[in-house]
Amino acid sequence: MNAEVVSIGDELLIGQVINTNQAYIAEKLNSVGISVKQMITVGDDHVEILSALRSAWDTSDVVTVTGGLGPTHDDVTRAAICGFFGVDLVQDENALANIRQLFASRGLPITRTNEDQAMVPRGCAVIPNNHGTAPGYFFERDGKYMIVMPGVPYEMTDMVESFIIPHFVRKITGSHFSHKTLKTTGIVESILAEHIGDVSELFPQKSGITLAYLPGPLGVRLRISVKSASKEAAEQKISDVEQKIRGKAQKYIYGENDEELEEVVGKLLTERGLKIAVAESCTGGLIADRITNVSGSSQYFERGFVTYSNQSKTEELGVSESILRQHGAVSREVAVAMAEGARKVADTHIAVSTTGIAGPTGGSEEKPVGLIWMGFSSIERTFAMKFHFGNNRRRFKERASQAALELVRRVLLKIE
Amino acid sequence: MNAEVVSIGDELLIGQVINTNQAYIAEKLNSVGISVKQMITVGDDHVEILSALRSAWDTSDVVTVTGGLGPTHDDVTRAAICGFFGVDLVQDENALANIRQLFASRGLPITRTNEDQAMVPRGCAVIPNNHGTAPGYFFERDGKYMIVMPGVPYEMTDMVESFIIPHFVRKITGSHFSHKTLKTTGIVESILAEHIGDVSELFPQKSGITLAYLPGPLGVRLRISVKSASKEAAEQKISDVEQKIRGKAQKYIYGENDEELEEVVGKLLTERGLKIAVAESCTGGLIADRITNVSGSSQYFERGFVTYSNQSKTEELGVSESILRQHGAVSREVAVAMAEGARKVADTHIAVSTTGIAGPTGGSEEKPVGLIWMGFSSIERTFAMKFHFGNNRRRFKERASQAALELVRRVLLKIE
Repeated sequence: MNAEVVSIGDELLIGQVINTNQAYIAEKLNSVGISVKQMITVGDDHVEILSALRSAWDTSDVVTVTGGLGPTHDDVTRAAICGFFGVDLVQDENALANIRQLFASRGLPITRTNEDQAMVPRGCAVIPNNHGTAPGYFFERDGKYMIVMPGVPYEMTDMVESFIIPHFVRKITGSHFSHKTLKTTGIVESILAEHIGDVSELFPQKSGITLAYLPGPLGVRLRISVKSASKEAAEQKISDVEQKIRGKAQKYIYGENDEELEEVVGKLLTERGLKIAVAESCTGGLIADRITNVSGSSQYFERGFVTYSNQSKTEELGVSESILRQHGAVSREVAVAMAEGARKVADTHIAVSTTGIAGPTGGSEEKPVGLIWMGFSSIERTFAMKFHFGNNRRRFKERASQAALELVRRVLLKIE
Repeated sequence: MNAEVVSIGDELLIGQVINTNQAYIAEKLNSVGISVKQMITVGDDHVEILSALRSAWDTSDVVTVTGGLGPTHDDVTRAAICGFFGVDLVQDENALANIRQLFASRGLPITRTNEDQAMVPRGCAVIPNNHGTAPGYFFERDGKYMIVMPGVPYEMTDMVESFIIPHFVRKITGSHFSHKTLKTTGIVESILAEHIGDVSELFPQKSGITLAYLPGPLGVRLRISVKSASKEAAEQKISDVEQKIRGKAQKYIYGENDEELEEVVGKLLTERGLKIAVAESCTGGLIADRITNVSGSSQYFERGFVTYSNQSKTEELGVSESILRQHGAVSREVAVAMAEGARKVADTHIAVSTTGIAGPTGGSEEKPVGLIWMGFSSIERTFAMKFHFGNNRRRFKERASQAALELVRRVLLKIE
């Protein structure tokens, strides 16, 4: 089966908005065995939309259409879909109830324009919108499918997750598709692949199972995809493969699916009743920022020190001036003293510290740009580790914050 | 004149990469008066590429093509371009010299495959690649143009900035296009538009000048675009319009073009020889993180306190327990005490503080989620201001960090 992804919106053609929907939809369709052959973007124009729909429908089994469904878009997409299939509009009671409920819950008055969004092309199957007013829908004609969804990313992605993947895909392929992503960090793709070894040892060929390595700047994600007759069978297969992968690379896997490392660390701290403090020099507050992105982090995050100057390292954390003079701010000794100082001053169970050269300038032969010392301190032990994270300042900070959080995770789980 | 933007690459069709090139190219073409009618993405497939090129060429004056030019892509795009125009390959001496120079400068051995990238379709005009090996090129046929560039974003954007906009666009339109963006924050689009008033007072109709309001979560950008006979005339026109806009909305304009607010604040602090400290509760380190994203920020950023717990506000910043008890952590009094405490403890000229409810939970009727008090302290004065930044945790933090930096900017410039 192959597909074409159609995006509609003038805001895309003037470059005001980067189209993230296409990549998202393409990734999801590919993950259920539907190949995307082409992606196209046209403006909020009836003729252009109809022309794109015709061309896509002629050459593809599945056509997805996003955008132009909101009340401010003059419903260009809805009218074009009606024109394409030669149908009129009909009111969908569920969609109307959803719109009324949404407005009531926000205490807002509802207008005719809002209610009008419950009008859908006759003969379509409606896809509920859990996050907005415009329903999605799909058509089946002669074994082909057209899926129409709003362009608002979180409304569209929810429709894909809650409806397209579990219901629609099952209906059209007769198969159930499941996925699970295992997130790793601190290991490069090639070494991870060596640990995991040949995939034929994980699952037999033609078992409907695939494993994808998805490398990114903060780690490699492992995506297990399974096509199966039932949800239960698919989940059993995923579980089997996951167990085998964990058996070979457990220590590098910090989370699953969309879980962020700061959430994982937050859960570990909560479970153990531990409080953390951070002492940051080169990461400049990014570690604290990430930890506090998690709702409820005030339960375990006590405080952070962004000790950029040498004086602040001494005054806030008690790093002795002689250590700073003797070893320099970017050193094992200072990283250790910062972590220990932060833990003691904040009176927390653990603390983590960073001191390095974020660049792009300021490096030397002995201490090049990208060098970082990272400290950890608990009542049991205090130590520091050295890393190199390259000469792009922002990327350096991001990689360093990831490594610091991963260090905490590994210590809490007694890894290595 | 209208255009079609063609992207080539299997990595796009599987959703591995979000296509940022299309929005970039669309924005640039629109800025020089070329309307993008359609954007299309196809895989690394000769037949699919040819089909996309034919369709684009039939309906557009300008066709841009990116992707599939690297040595690892089997040069599918180059072959398809040759096929489309019915030409063979010819070696370009400048491109070859560039490739050799690039490898020499990196101390890497050069291979036949690398040198082969200097082979370009006969009859094209070559676009130099200042950041990589694959040259770009363009064709002119019957008053139409096809521009072919690598898909690597920084190689492509450099070609657009250094060649397409100054040379190619001048050649095909006979005009010079210039742009300038003025960045504002702390004012919504509608109020900003009221301040600036009718555009007819800024410039006459048909003067080749346009003004676009580009709203975003952290502020509204004002883009002045000018089409003129010469670069000098265009820049004079931009300067005139900019003066008029500044006369009406100067205090909201913090920067120009790609300048970030943290860079602007950094320059102001540097010029005045001032040091800053930050005391963050709800922003959790994001203000410090942004300040330290700027290379050289150690010259003016002394230290930051991420005082998440009440105890840390007392211990680090000297916020009295009675104030915390009486007014609560999210209050004018605490914001003031935090800013003053940070300034004194860090011994800096100024300090800024935040205390608020980032949500999504934890609000009350009196102090709802999204409420934030922001403090400022210098030797001359200490005060706090109240804002509401909504119930999305990350968006709240981003908007709060922007407002805090803007507060510093306005105080330093004695605005209001």
